[in-house]
Amino acid sequence: MPGPRGEYRKSAQRRAQILDAAFEVFSRSGYTASSVNEIARQVGITQTGVLHHFAGGKKALLQAVLEQRDARAEGVLERRTGRAFLAGLVEISRAQASQRGVVQMYRHLSAEAVDPEHPAHRYFRDRLRRIAAAVEGAFCEVAAEGGLREGVDPAQAAQRTLAMTEGLEHLWLMGHEVDMAEDIRRVIDEFLVEPLPSAPDRQDPDAGEGA
Amino acid sequence: MPGPRGEYRKSAQRRAQILDAAFEVFSRSGYTASSVNEIARQVGITQTGVLHHFAGGKKALLQAVLEQRDARAEGVLERRTGRAFLAGLVEISRAQASQRGVVQMYRHLSAEAVDPEHPAHRYFRDRLRRIAAAVEGAFCEVAAEGGLREGVDPAQAAQRTLAMTEGLEHLWLMGHEVDMAEDIRRVIDEFLVEPLPSAPDRQDPDAGEGA
Repeated sequence: MPGPRGEYRKSAQRRAQILDAAFEVFSRSGYTASSVNEIARQVGITQTGVLHHFAGGKKALLQAVLEQRDARAEGVLERRTGRAFLAGLVEISRAQASQRGVVQMYRHLSAEAVDPEHPAHRYFRDRLRRIAAAVEGAFCEVAAEGGLREGVDPAQAAQRTLAMTEGLEHLWLMGHEVDMAEDIRRVIDEFLVEPLPSAPDRQDPDAGEGA
Repeated sequence: MPGPRGEYRKSAQRRAQILDAAFEVFSRSGYTASSVNEIARQVGITQTGVLHHFAGGKKALLQAVLEQRDARAEGVLERRTGRAFLAGLVEISRAQASQRGVVQMYRHLSAEAVDPEHPAHRYFRDRLRRIAAAVEGAFCEVAAEGGLREGVDPAQAAQRTLAMTEGLEHLWLMGHEVDMAEDIRRVIDEFLVEPLPSAPDRQDPDAGEGA
């Protein structure tokens, strides 16, 4: 029989299973058309079983899914500044090219959440502001080192970088040939005196898991 | 009693009412969460009444709504080429700044339609390809007159213009301060030897309906 620690581990595992299922169901159907029931079925438990872990129901599941995902993504940018931060944006785009479902869910949800009444509206709005501020901060750091081209305004550079990222994702999801990471690198490079380091050679057999 | 022409006119009016209602309901709730019933209620008729005009139900309504809207927007670009076409893109963006609901619906629907199973997937995919081809065509026409800066590739310029348009719309809908038309004009100008004519002075009391 599992002791208290075993119970705790079991509960944490179940919670993680529910979050994975919620992520998948939200990705597939969008928030509005998804139900706690569908998520419960996906895990193979009852709706009550889901509510035991997420008493706030569908809204609580949405929030938990988004926070988990963001915490992972923000790991890439943590403790980076200036050019290294900007290079991190390119790396995130490169990783997303193999995560179509995730990108699709973010687009789907953030498009729904444009409605101020949507439960995730504030989340997406605050997240976008936070990202915009961080990107602007990175451009300011580069500016302080004399690394921005003449006449480039950090706030505008940040806004254009974000808009391009968003727009390229959409074209990519709609089947256009887009190399998101390289295109975003080019956009960023236009603001910089020295271009960012170019992409690692993904053909290199020693390059590790990316090969 | 209305004769056959009166009947026809009545029927056309009812059809237009239903389309307006469908547009509003889709804008508010997105396609998936909308129902023919809700659209019928909005018009004040029965579901059967709606199906009399749109036998294909919700899918048919969606298609009709999108086609009507596009036909109106394409009017702006008809018969324009080269720089005049590119200036038309800026004008469309300027008009959209007063159509938040419309822009919101397009984003909502096109984000849903990223899913290849969505009934509007093909519509949005084909529409985006058509627009991309038209914008690329305009940049090619400008290139033929020597109007593009050295090293600018028309296909890439078109893709970046579209991505920026899409991305700026998103930032705008999420509450960022964005002057979409001016920002898109700046993006296009970076590809051109001569900048596009600048915005008409919207403070000018003689400027007509834009004033």
